[in-house]
Amino acid sequence: MALISPSRRLRRTPFSDGVEAAGVKAYTVYNRMLLPTVFESVEADYRHLKTHVQVWDVAVERQVELRGPDAGRLMQMLTPRDLRGMLPGQCYYVPIVDETGGMLNDPVALKLSEERWWISIADSDLLLWVKGIANGYRLDVLVDEPDVSPLAVQGPKADDLVARVFGDAVRDIRFFRFGWFQFEGRDIIVARSGYSKQGGFEIYVEGSDLGMPLWEALFDQGADLQVRAGCPNGIERIEGGLLSYGNDMTDDNTPHECGLGRFCDTQTAIGCIGRDALLRVAKEGPVQQIRPLAIAGEAVPGCDRAWPIYGGGERVGQVTSAAWSPDFDTNVAIGMVRMTHWTPGTMLEVETPDGMRAAKVQAQFWL
Amino acid sequence: MALISPSRRLRRTPFSDGVEAAGVKAYTVYNRMLLPTVFESVEADYRHLKTHVQVWDVAVERQVELRGPDAGRLMQMLTPRDLRGMLPGQCYYVPIVDETGGMLNDPVALKLSEERWWISIADSDLLLWVKGIANGYRLDVLVDEPDVSPLAVQGPKADDLVARVFGDAVRDIRFFRFGWFQFEGRDIIVARSGYSKQGGFEIYVEGSDLGMPLWEALFDQGADLQVRAGCPNGIERIEGGLLSYGNDMTDDNTPHECGLGRFCDTQTAIGCIGRDALLRVAKEGPVQQIRPLAIAGEAVPGCDRAWPIYGGGERVGQVTSAAWSPDFDTNVAIGMVRMTHWTPGTMLEVETPDGMRAAKVQAQFWL
Repeated sequence: MALISPSRRLRRTPFSDGVEAAGVKAYTVYNRMLLPTVFESVEADYRHLKTHVQVWDVAVERQVELRGPDAGRLMQMLTPRDLRGMLPGQCYYVPIVDETGGMLNDPVALKLSEERWWISIADSDLLLWVKGIANGYRLDVLVDEPDVSPLAVQGPKADDLVARVFGDAVRDIRFFRFGWFQFEGRDIIVARSGYSKQGGFEIYVEGSDLGMPLWEALFDQGADLQVRAGCPNGIERIEGGLLSYGNDMTDDNTPHECGLGRFCDTQTAIGCIGRDALLRVAKEGPVQQIRPLAIAGEAVPGCDRAWPIYGGGERVGQVTSAAWSPDFDTNVAIGMVRMTHWTPGTMLEVETPDGMRAAKVQAQFWL
Repeated sequence: MALISPSRRLRRTPFSDGVEAAGVKAYTVYNRMLLPTVFESVEADYRHLKTHVQVWDVAVERQVELRGPDAGRLMQMLTPRDLRGMLPGQCYYVPIVDETGGMLNDPVALKLSEERWWISIADSDLLLWVKGIANGYRLDVLVDEPDVSPLAVQGPKADDLVARVFGDAVRDIRFFRFGWFQFEGRDIIVARSGYSKQGGFEIYVEGSDLGMPLWEALFDQGADLQVRAGCPNGIERIEGGLLSYGNDMTDDNTPHECGLGRFCDTQTAIGCIGRDALLRVAKEGPVQQIRPLAIAGEAVPGCDRAWPIYGGGERVGQVTSAAWSPDFDTNVAIGMVRMTHWTPGTMLEVETPDGMRAAKVQAQFWL
């Protein structure tokens, strides 16, 4: 791995002091901000995540705030998912598409009230798209990036740890719901969500000054739970089929290609900018789609570019994420595969940097 | 420095194979793509840049292409600079602002024809803003990121090297002009521009397949010119006062605060989205502005966050870029300083990670 040169442009987070003290070994850059990727080792971090509880600096999930009378209307313009039934206190996973149905981001939207929404974004400057749309359509709404930095608590002991800091009421938060809880006299949103399949919460820390006090509180309360600093884990997220925008999909792809057709209510999501294009896709169906793949042989190296997939000598897709899974004793991978070759059980070949490998289309991710 | 984890999301460029073979030691991430920052050492790279000629992978300068009848109108909506006198074949440095006059990017625009423009962007997804505006105003224009990757040739011997590959006609290209030149039977734009003060060109390589052939040709032809792989140099660009979006300015800043008031023709740039806000700023003048600063003492560490500036015990600004300059025997720096303290010669204090340092406002950069 190469080194990363520091600069102000690669923004630090309210938790960076804690991350550094915990001995972070590597970063990626996400939304022009530092995102830790390794503490002990990817494998050791993985085992710990599945056994105990971790605190993750995911401040890179920047928020796009919509505020004002047209906030709800604007939110529906951005996504093909029908938002009419969404209540304050709910989180929705919402594909965001442009006028051609191309994915611009795959964030989680939080409805704070009828006139106030946060969009917790993946890796693209969604703020600029939303500001442009709000301006062009002359909507009565303020669009901004507030001083909000999510901190995730993930792992089987997450409920115990978060309950010690915010009280037992957090145990009652349902999946993809959030509530307001007190910390140091301030109201903070705690949601049951996160970029792992191990369970846990995302705490939307409003005000950078609260960042390190909350970090410290979680570590102080969690010593006997073996709490550690962690980060989204490359193995665990592939096993669980959690997609990564920029890795597994780009603006070239429709939600249907990403297996997100169930979030596209093209008959009812009135006002969505990409609706016409997606109606067409929904009728015809995608010709390629994301699939879980098991790649044979020893551990593959890091997937730093798309690896071509071949079937019967022809190119039929590409692998975009891959890692060796200790628990499933195979290389787990995510790839985009043409419909001619996407049936579970189909045997394919993947061109990795270490040479051609056999691969098999799986029926489902390794949940 | 920490390590950077590889992933497809941090995109490689058409020149990455060449960059790796040349022994790149560190990267930054810019527009979600890898940008080399160090080959031999920042100091050795600096000396070589000022003496010989370097080939830079600046594919991170992604292009936003505007094409169609409304391309010119859209371009003028984006910037307060009056574009009426701009001719095909010209490059313009254009601040891009939102409706409040906040800087969204500070790219170079190339006018290919009345109906076709490229915007060669700094580090933000300007594509999303431009697409949003085009959609919202229902403009008759296509907005896209084409397969174009700039390769820069910079240094005192740049003319000699580029003339060997593209012919002597490149010597006649004037500053911030471009022409079409042949390479392997294909037309390529060569512009006299670049992110250094040492002179040179930016070659807009259209088609990723041409990347490595051009890279190889430049190295083959330049052996006796001591050509090397290089990259934008942190010392040289601060000496020369070349600003960096994300470091020295963000969307919090107006062009006037960045010393770019001369590119704001608020009386004549009819249609610019931020015009009303900037007219206000132009009347009142900014209350803070970017200034060159000399920081006393030994070499400062890398500026990975804003360093507070104090004057008379009060906070009056922040340093955002700084480096030790061997040629000027001081720490050269760029900072945003309040008007009460921005007069050249003013003595200030800067809070660096190594403690408080004396600093002096300079009359100009170290050209």
